[in-house]
Amino acid sequence: MANSFGQLFRITTWGESHGGGVGVVVDGCPPRLKLAEADIQPDLDRRRPGQSRIVTPRKELDKVQILSGIFEGQTLGTPISMWVRNEDARSEAYSEMATKFRPSHADYTYAAKYGIRNWQGGGRTSARETIGRVAAGAIAKKLLRERFGVEVLAYVKQVQRLVAEVNPETVKAKEIEANIVRCPEPAMAEKMIRLIERMRKAGDSVGGIVEGVARGVPPGWGEPVFDRLEADLGKAMLSLPASKGFDIGSGFGGILLTGMEHNDAFRMKSGKVRTVTNRSGGIQGGISNGESIYFRVAFKPVATVMHEQDTVDTGFRNTTLKGRGRHDPCVLPRAVPMVEAMTALVLVDHALRHRAQCGE
Amino acid sequence: MANSFGQLFRITTWGESHGGGVGVVVDGCPPRLKLAEADIQPDLDRRRPGQSRIVTPRKELDKVQILSGIFEGQTLGTPISMWVRNEDARSEAYSEMATKFRPSHADYTYAAKYGIRNWQGGGRTSARETIGRVAAGAIAKKLLRERFGVEVLAYVKQVQRLVAEVNPETVKAKEIEANIVRCPEPAMAEKMIRLIERMRKAGDSVGGIVEGVARGVPPGWGEPVFDRLEADLGKAMLSLPASKGFDIGSGFGGILLTGMEHNDAFRMKSGKVRTVTNRSGGIQGGISNGESIYFRVAFKPVATVMHEQDTVDTGFRNTTLKGRGRHDPCVLPRAVPMVEAMTALVLVDHALRHRAQCGE
Amino acid sequence: MANSFGQLFRITTWGESHGGGVGVVVDGCPPRLKLAEADIQPDLDRRRPGQSRIVTPRKELDKVQILSGIFEGQTLGTPISMWVRNEDARSEAYSEMATKFRPSHADYTYAAKYGIRNWQGGGRTSARETIGRVAAGAIAKKLLRERFGVEVLAYVKQVQRLVAEVNPETVKAKEIEANIVRCPEPAMAEKMIRLIERMRKAGDSVGGIVEGVARGVPPGWGEPVFDRLEADLGKAMLSLPASKGFDIGSGFGGILLTGMEHNDAFRMKSGKVRTVTNRSGGIQGGISNGESIYFRVAFKPVATVMHEQDTVDTGFRNTTLKGRGRHDPCVLPRAVPMVEAMTALVLVDHALRHRAQCGE
Amino acid sequence: MANSFGQLFRITTWGESHGGGVGVVVDGCPPRLKLAEADIQPDLDRRRPGQSRIVTPRKELDKVQILSGIFEGQTLGTPISMWVRNEDARSEAYSEMATKFRPSHADYTYAAKYGIRNWQGGGRTSARETIGRVAAGAIAKKLLRERFGVEVLAYVKQVQRLVAEVNPETVKAKEIEANIVRCPEPAMAEKMIRLIERMRKAGDSVGGIVEGVARGVPPGWGEPVFDRLEADLGKAMLSLPASKGFDIGSGFGGILLTGMEHNDAFRMKSGKVRTVTNRSGGIQGGISNGESIYFRVAFKPVATVMHEQDTVDTGFRNTTLKGRGRHDPCVLPRAVPMVEAMTALVLVDHALRHRAQCGE
Repeated sequence: MANSFGQLFRITTWGESHGGGVGVVVDGCPPRLKLAEADIQPDLDRRRPGQSRIVTPRKELDKVQILSGIFEGQTLGTPISMWVRNEDARSEAYSEMATKFRPSHADYTYAAKYGIRNWQGGGRTSARETIGRVAAGAIAKKLLRERFGVEVLAYVKQVQRLVAEVNPETVKAKEIEANIVRCPEPAMAEKMIRLIERMRKAGDSVGGIVEGVARGVPPGWGEPVFDRLEADLGKAMLSLPASKGFDIGSGFGGILLTGMEHNDAFRMKSGKVRTVTNRSGGIQGGISNGESIYFRVAFKPVATVMHEQDTVDTGFRNTTLKGRGRHDPCVLPRAVPMVEAMTALVLVDHALRHRAQCGE
Repeated sequence: MANSFGQLFRITTWGESHGGGVGVVVDGCPPRLKLAEADIQPDLDRRRPGQSRIVTPRKELDKVQILSGIFEGQTLGTPISMWVRNEDARSEAYSEMATKFRPSHADYTYAAKYGIRNWQGGGRTSARETIGRVAAGAIAKKLLRERFGVEVLAYVKQVQRLVAEVNPETVKAKEIEANIVRCPEPAMAEKMIRLIERMRKAGDSVGGIVEGVARGVPPGWGEPVFDRLEADLGKAMLSLPASKGFDIGSGFGGILLTGMEHNDAFRMKSGKVRTVTNRSGGIQGGISNGESIYFRVAFKPVATVMHEQDTVDTGFRNTTLKGRGRHDPCVLPRAVPMVEAMTALVLVDHALRHRAQCGE
Repeated sequence: MANSFGQLFRITTWGESHGGGVGVVVDGCPPRLKLAEADIQPDLDRRRPGQSRIVTPRKELDKVQILSGIFEGQTLGTPISMWVRNEDARSEAYSEMATKFRPSHADYTYAAKYGIRNWQGGGRTSARETIGRVAAGAIAKKLLRERFGVEVLAYVKQVQRLVAEVNPETVKAKEIEANIVRCPEPAMAEKMIRLIERMRKAGDSVGGIVEGVARGVPPGWGEPVFDRLEADLGKAMLSLPASKGFDIGSGFGGILLTGMEHNDAFRMKSGKVRTVTNRSGGIQGGISNGESIYFRVAFKPVATVMHEQDTVDTGFRNTTLKGRGRHDPCVLPRAVPMVEAMTALVLVDHALRHRAQCGE
Repeated sequence: MANSFGQLFRITTWGESHGGGVGVVVDGCPPRLKLAEADIQPDLDRRRPGQSRIVTPRKELDKVQILSGIFEGQTLGTPISMWVRNEDARSEAYSEMATKFRPSHADYTYAAKYGIRNWQGGGRTSARETIGRVAAGAIAKKLLRERFGVEVLAYVKQVQRLVAEVNPETVKAKEIEANIVRCPEPAMAEKMIRLIERMRKAGDSVGGIVEGVARGVPPGWGEPVFDRLEADLGKAMLSLPASKGFDIGSGFGGILLTGMEHNDAFRMKSGKVRTVTNRSGGIQGGISNGESIYFRVAFKPVATVMHEQDTVDTGFRNTTLKGRGRHDPCVLPRAVPMVEAMTALVLVDHALRHRAQCGE
């Protein structure tokens, strides 16, 4: 079950970074959605290594193939199986990983849990696993857009100390895609790129914040109690590699306000119940209130650095390990499509759940 | 499904703040655990209103009754049904709530979702719902302690701008329970209490941070990919009323470090693989690494304030609403047992899942 | 999870025959269904012991109480908790059960599984567990009738060698309820009753077949592959105490026909696609085709008989055991409401699942 | 969810008979099981068309490829993705199926449910879907054999009126595989083969019964209430294409006995609690009792026959349809590995569930 996500629009991902490939099965997609590989590939291109000078240089094309669930260009309502073949299997580049646990990676914990691990390229813990999520998320985004009028976006909000000013109500996809760091404030984007390049040259890495937005969600999606919309979004984001935190609306910053300062007053506007402010982040009591949903995800600096570090080997002896070969100084630009994908997966699942229980 | 949590140790809560009562069914508890109401009641007493001068003054005893699953003082392996009867049904105190949506509460979103709501005392959105969680969590804590040697604790780390210094490795339960705000740093606890009392007198409210800790978790609990331990903890915490954020280990603060600064070096210590620092917060790649797990949960200031606020009524007209009657100036002291309960529920579920897949 | 049933209309039952009581939590019921205890009680009265001279004489009133999920006579969309208090706790009547395993009961297997069992009245294996199912099923039947135009019925088709002729397309509820054995063919019902009375006097028991029918199910409910409608119905029926078999449509009898004889030809009728025969039992490829759904459930003779039988005691020594006290010579009349309940639970779940995936 | 089966050892199948291929993802397999394609292929060869003169002549090799979850010949504990490429895409042979609903197939119900269907070769309703089940089942059988000492077998018990005498306690795999109909009674097997050949020549088809057996299951597997072992086995079998009925132990035949005749007396034997007879079929109260588990599955005659039949077209007009091309006169020989696979999947899931809740 650990490799499935969602209740009604359920995805199951599979695959190690080395082996036959990586993929996903999407179960529960509504029928008669127009769908082709061309709908999926652009998000995979935004996710893949080697897309710009500030991300890991692995040269993979990550061409997706749809194996089932489509007929004459439309979804059948049956499972959609998609996969990407593994190409770049330079396992020798990683051979030291066979006998040493990389610090702040999952090498040790996998070995402790399973008593075996595929040490090549991180195996299942590789960011390649997110290919399946992003492919499934592209379908979810299309469904949300075409059937529910919902738009999902994400962008880099912060790199280390560099914080961009972005209005989640108005930011546009093309502004995000206008630069390689995927920060829609051009001047700050330039600074972020320079910082990341410095880190790359230094063999070091930086983290930051990706902000996610969903606009057009109608009031009523989400559930009370455990499957609150923010709880499911939080789980989705905290399941992404390298994520360490999540907050929504006013989030951690809202702590500094008092209740009177923090509350979102209701007012009628164009015949709709609206809130004057949106510190709730579009969700109240676990259920969408019609305002834009926005939240932040903290990503730690990438663990692989090009310097010698203390560690332990598989024989349980102290040793050192120095990162070699490819180096990803900042995961954030590639995390943007991952955040969008997981957001869309949560929302489309709740859209279907709402229709099941409260539909006519 | 929205009212169930957990895969193998699964709880289902039920009940509105007004109606017959609130309760929980625990399915999947291992057999032959010694269990009685006396194991449950103390945590409910820590959760209940009226326990001190800084929490909401509702006078409820919240006496738990176990209805099934126990025989001759031990668990049977069958569902454990527990409930608390509702007593304090002063629905007249809330009558204005029948026709007006309280700002930053879930009144409007429930109405939008279901087309009906129990407006008395917040209905299902009432914090009374957490009685079931805390009761189930008490069982989970006992299982963790007696069968797995794991200790779960939580405490108030921050109230508005007041931040306590607490060492999650060494803090003790009795230090937490030594004062009514449940902050184990006595001097800071005093300041917090004074702040909360000021808020109560002002008819306003404050939020803050509860930190949760689990010590003694062995390496190997948790899952890769979607059901990462931090993802399930995050979902658990973000499902608590009034929570707005979650981060683990270095969390949002870890963003300011570079990869070299942030990584946790491995070293052998007393024959065990240990990390020199614990910025990972005890979890790497979704799986526990044997270090202490610690994380923070942000709670917004309570939405009910004793002042007039703009809002909308059920006829969709602009109006105002002033909180009356009871007033909870700070949810944090009562959130402490809730955070402990949810932490324990996540951990025991993963303990059983680990045993299922990787046990001998 | 073992105590939950359904994906979207999910019930969780709890309770032993001796202890506080037995109950059920219904999660996922659509909002705004008119519902009161008076909608539930009649089916519980059909299920309860002591209702006639041919069933077990336990005198229980089984008065249901709804504890949550209802407001001003309508469902809220939140969990509906219902329970029945245990009254008839004559545990001394069963004391021999503490040390001996009753043949063809679950005493031994529970002990083997859990290392503990509540031996009083069978504990969790008691037919009292079905109170929760029947209560939840009454809600499901009401939903099916009022929102989907579907009628669910069951009746006794066979007692030992006595087989009734019943047309599942036309049989009426009042014909079923016209006699205490719940067989709608009056002459055969008389014979069945006489047979059961003979068994009661002989201290022995008989089994038979309950046939279930659902009329008005629209084409399209059900799923391909694993959650076929007949697979979920089969699981539901085989989860009932004492059931040993299930078949649908032509069932085991269809084996004797060839493909040409067995196929259901399609013909247009009143503008609808209909089948000329209905050997498919209303389901093709796991999905309803608009014809009546009908199936049979085999119930073994009740295991408790008033004669000495070989068995083993809890110290693993050969011994004998003679049934005492109450004696249920035939479970079939009381199984009728159970079959109806489980049928309705399966159908309403699939109705919601269909709406989620294929609704507009 | 409809395409997943199992709670802890969960499989998800995907694929249409025409399209990229068919496959399965196995999630939850324990780590460090030796596994290679050679462990899977034999069962696929027993399942595939064209294996003998009495089954459908489609010439497919069905060569399985493992894409993930294995490293250096052992399972990793991560998802095992397996697939078989579709080769025999002679869609023109089926062109009439585009516009006409085949009687007693799922063409109409899929169209009614989804508003779209892949009419080529039956699409998702094709028996090709069972490739994924059989591949996953081969892993489950290996786990059961090597880790739990459990053997799973199935064989053809009955073809139309021809009933074999087989002792489920002693039947051997090589006796089953000794002939093409997979009936371990040689003389009856010959009669069955002749009957099926007559049917093939007549362009007609026959059904029958496959009996499944599990030997060596320890006492304690299974769950009370909904997930009874027989309920999960029943669901598993009724999810197989063309199955119409399931019974276990004495099954439908047990109805003719009285309780005194039917009960299985307990006796100590070699220090173990055993039953003198096994009318319970190895399961009591939903939980295994240590005796052999055996049950029967009724399969209807294959719907495709080589004669003209009344039907309706996609424009809702009466018409006729005559089967062409390949013809499968009897599904039973190929159903044998399917029954084994589903049995093993149910048992291994319950083995893991039992370990989770009741393990030490």
